[in-house]
Amino acid sequence: MGRQKVYLDKLSRFFQIRNLLLRQALAECLGTLILVMFGCGAVAQLVLSGGSHGMFLTVNFAFGFAATLGILVCGQVSGGHLNPAVTFALCLLGRERWRKFPMYFLFQTIGAFFGAAVIFGMYYDALWDHPGCFNVTGPKATAGIFATYPGKHLTLVNAFFDQIIGTAALIVCILAIVDPYNNPIPQGLEAFTVGFVVLVIGLSMGFNSGYAVNPARDLGPRLFTAMAGWGSEVFTARKGWFLVPVFAPFLGTIIGVMIYQMMVGFHVEGEVRDRQETAPENVRLTNVTANDNPKEPTKEML
Amino acid sequence: MGRQKVYLDKLSRFFQIRNLLLRQALAECLGTLILVMFGCGAVAQLVLSGGSHGMFLTVNFAFGFAATLGILVCGQVSGGHLNPAVTFALCLLGRERWRKFPMYFLFQTIGAFFGAAVIFGMYYDALWDHPGCFNVTGPKATAGIFATYPGKHLTLVNAFFDQIIGTAALIVCILAIVDPYNNPIPQGLEAFTVGFVVLVIGLSMGFNSGYAVNPARDLGPRLFTAMAGWGSEVFTARKGWFLVPVFAPFLGTIIGVMIYQMMVGFHVEGEVRDRQETAPENVRLTNVTANDNPKEPTKEML
Amino acid sequence: MGRQKVYLDKLSRFFQIRNLLLRQALAECLGTLILVMFGCGAVAQLVLSGGSHGMFLTVNFAFGFAATLGILVCGQVSGGHLNPAVTFALCLLGRERWRKFPMYFLFQTIGAFFGAAVIFGMYYDALWDHPGCFNVTGPKATAGIFATYPGKHLTLVNAFFDQIIGTAALIVCILAIVDPYNNPIPQGLEAFTVGFVVLVIGLSMGFNSGYAVNPARDLGPRLFTAMAGWGSEVFTARKGWFLVPVFAPFLGTIIGVMIYQMMVGFHVEGEVRDRQETAPENVRLTNVTANDNPKEPTKEML
Amino acid sequence: MGRQKVYLDKLSRFFQIRNLLLRQALAECLGTLILVMFGCGAVAQLVLSGGSHGMFLTVNFAFGFAATLGILVCGQVSGGHLNPAVTFALCLLGRERWRKFPMYFLFQTIGAFFGAAVIFGMYYDALWDHPGCFNVTGPKATAGIFATYPGKHLTLVNAFFDQIIGTAALIVCILAIVDPYNNPIPQGLEAFTVGFVVLVIGLSMGFNSGYAVNPARDLGPRLFTAMAGWGSEVFTARKGWFLVPVFAPFLGTIIGVMIYQMMVGFHVEGEVRDRQETAPENVRLTNVTANDNPKEPTKEML
Repeated sequence: MGRQKVYLDKLSRFFQIRNLLLRQALAECLGTLILVMFGCGAVAQLVLSGGSHGMFLTVNFAFGFAATLGILVCGQVSGGHLNPAVTFALCLLGRERWRKFPMYFLFQTIGAFFGAAVIFGMYYDALWDHPGCFNVTGPKATAGIFATYPGKHLTLVNAFFDQIIGTAALIVCILAIVDPYNNPIPQGLEAFTVGFVVLVIGLSMGFNSGYAVNPARDLGPRLFTAMAGWGSEVFTARKGWFLVPVFAPFLGTIIGVMIYQMMVGFHVEGEVRDRQETAPENVRLTNVTANDNPKEPTKEML
Repeated sequence: MGRQKVYLDKLSRFFQIRNLLLRQALAECLGTLILVMFGCGAVAQLVLSGGSHGMFLTVNFAFGFAATLGILVCGQVSGGHLNPAVTFALCLLGRERWRKFPMYFLFQTIGAFFGAAVIFGMYYDALWDHPGCFNVTGPKATAGIFATYPGKHLTLVNAFFDQIIGTAALIVCILAIVDPYNNPIPQGLEAFTVGFVVLVIGLSMGFNSGYAVNPARDLGPRLFTAMAGWGSEVFTARKGWFLVPVFAPFLGTIIGVMIYQMMVGFHVEGEVRDRQETAPENVRLTNVTANDNPKEPTKEML
Repeated sequence: MGRQKVYLDKLSRFFQIRNLLLRQALAECLGTLILVMFGCGAVAQLVLSGGSHGMFLTVNFAFGFAATLGILVCGQVSGGHLNPAVTFALCLLGRERWRKFPMYFLFQTIGAFFGAAVIFGMYYDALWDHPGCFNVTGPKATAGIFATYPGKHLTLVNAFFDQIIGTAALIVCILAIVDPYNNPIPQGLEAFTVGFVVLVIGLSMGFNSGYAVNPARDLGPRLFTAMAGWGSEVFTARKGWFLVPVFAPFLGTIIGVMIYQMMVGFHVEGEVRDRQETAPENVRLTNVTANDNPKEPTKEML
Repeated sequence: MGRQKVYLDKLSRFFQIRNLLLRQALAECLGTLILVMFGCGAVAQLVLSGGSHGMFLTVNFAFGFAATLGILVCGQVSGGHLNPAVTFALCLLGRERWRKFPMYFLFQTIGAFFGAAVIFGMYYDALWDHPGCFNVTGPKATAGIFATYPGKHLTLVNAFFDQIIGTAALIVCILAIVDPYNNPIPQGLEAFTVGFVVLVIGLSMGFNSGYAVNPARDLGPRLFTAMAGWGSEVFTARKGWFLVPVFAPFLGTIIGVMIYQMMVGFHVEGEVRDRQETAPENVRLTNVTANDNPKEPTKEML
């Protein structure tokens, strides 16, 4: 086994990327690929099997646990956001640097693009076998496997509101999970808890337009479908819809951050600050050290 | 990032509430909002999609994991009761002060009210698109999305008994989970376990009238529906029903507390007391310190 | 709150039972009551709602998580067996005293009896509303809510074999979970893992006769139905069937214990013993202490 | 109880196998037996009940949690691979010795063979009661209970690609879970996480051909069906198909290992190496000790 170790070591040195931000972006890309591959795979299984191998609940489970697995794969390296809205929320709160935001957004979208590509390849035969295989609209449409499209009952105003509420709910729960001053769960279970958040959002907020609540998860696969054969109709269907899951989540993020901070976050932070200020000098120093980065979700080492 | 930190710090100081009880009540309000938003959202998705995007199992999952998430959001601050019956049980056992009870009840009901409001806004178009959109009774009724209504087969006596059993089962399980003398699960997993309790109650006790087992979860949304367009019929339907999920759970709480204490709780407490009394003085003091608040679900700092 | 504490303390002293075995049997009784209440409640919900509020999967979930909750309620006191077959397995392996076996069996059966009674009371109206409300056999039979009955395709020989395999599978998995020499999961998660075992057995071994795999869970509710109105037919239906879930599980337990010990258990024990024998004297003493009761599922203090 | 202990001790000494590799192979055999018994049992329940006692989701749950239970039973002894592809991946990365590979492959296949045999015995009556009880193809075929068969829409090329993608996804997730340099989850929860991976693969990649992604899980039961009455048609159906789940997973393993190492693994290893090289000598020694086997999934003691 000696020679194999030497060879692996050489490979490891050859491929190692030393730029932290690029490494983080790559990890984020793989995590989002996994999220979209499993999530959209479950939609494909439901649509292409005509309901025999899936139902809406299986799609919810798949997206929820796919988020868990995506975070597990990349979380130690990049924080496991998988969603530009989450990156945006952490930047807003000063827990991530702003320059990470465009880089993460780009690589998350690329990961989502390739996640859709993997599913397209996997179900290629099943897709051609499906009546109306490249339709964007209509009862047999398949474009909804990859990107989200609003239900018939939905106006664009309500659709916008729907994405805002969904993202705000997601952000409130995620902030509670990763809040360094209010750490309710054992370390290492964050990924599972976020998976349950995504699952519950799917169970209760998925009927209107399929709970994108993630600009990268929607934009990447939509770009892929435009290129893979569904054509530009994926952008023009339900005029302007494609912009909603790209922009509404950021507005929802701002609202979610405000609600969580107003009702829980600011008070918990304040309590910690108050205790430090009233504590004697020598104790206080210890407290500062202990509280300044108690459970940082990401490691800054640049 | 220096300026952002300063700005965030200022905001935090400005919005900080220094009254602990009010802070706890606010957290409780947000937690119950999350419970009702996700829970009733799943009912809305089931009813409004006509079964294509949900089934009774998804409602059970949503209420269960919504309870988990609600507790995670507010548990560190307020204990994460989300239910006046739980607050009542902990007051009965002397683990919470009685003056918390009315405050929590009020803010839990307010949270449930706004949770229903969020779902109403989110599914506004879908609601208008639904035949019989503002009916309280009948096959196409939608009032059941928010508050609970008894099945046709149910008499008021059995309905009362149903709510008592459901709440007693809930309380027995929750007491076992948070009993400081009988701590069976790793710290930090209480929220998940309570979620499973709510899930199981839904799976096995949901057919009669929809397992409210929570006065706030039922009263808040019922008030909302009365104001949002369903009218006073939500109170008069099945004459007097609306009082059952408000009062029966407290009776069920008393029974649940008695059963748990009689069959498990008193004996475990007694064993701990016996060991302390027979132990030599110096060991005993340590034991008293260690056992008096081994795993307090809430922090009293007032 | 001072007076309340004094009063609670008095109550606690008054009701405290000092006999450990009786206390354990009482806890076991409450745990089995919870298992049967939630489990049979889910069957009742499925049968009485005609499928609208449940399916076979919900019954599996309910029995699985009901086992988890039952173990959580009584596990610290009595070990959380909930099943005479589990008690029998632990006695066979010398981890529980044999005199516990009849006591546990009796109180587990009593708990199951009252669990069925609670569900009977809860769904009393729904039961009378159901066509064929007290039938033991036939398409609209309701006796299957409480005790198990074999499918039409099943001969008694295969039924016996079915119960043996089911119990053997249960015991192999439970032994792996609680084996003190092979402890694969973090302390405190045993209850959840056992819940998953019961869930999986339901998912894959439930079609033949409803996976009783537990003499108490079947006998208690069957006695209740005989008394509550279904009559002696619950014992005579499918001639002799009622004896299968009472006796076959014990045979399955023996087979399960043998398989686990032959393929995993004896070797792990042997390895630990070997290390102790080769270790120097002073180290060995420490090892003996550490290995003799590393993770005892029950506490003997009699 | 003294005599029982002595007797058990004698038995333990008699049956103890002292060869580690054989012990590991036996444990691996039992783990794979459990995986296939519960997994194929769920398929049997679905097929033989005609959908009344199962659906595709229950099969996914069963395979997922069966993987968890199989790993729990044998993980401490053998690492809990249950899948030659996983053994292959760990050998490729130098974490297991190559000579383990054929031994594990053989015993995993034997375990899968007997797992199928147990289910065959359990559902013997139900199988004979099923129309077309020993058909390999056609709408009432039962061979699919044990081994996998491709859907009608699937060409052999796509089937090959399907197994490659499925295994690659499995391997990427498992590598992230057991990577000693990137340990995202608390020790002891690996088995549960792998169960979720298998569940999600079933939810999103199960429509084409039933997600074998495991040569032993497919080959063992296929051999059993050939012998138990389905005949040689199990090998000749869809000409050459039976070779796909035997060979494609290994190709998928290589791709999965490459993707994970390129995008996450090499960089994390490199970072650890870099820190060691820049650290002063005395600190470095400690680091080497701590990092060389931080969370070894298997224990080499030969």
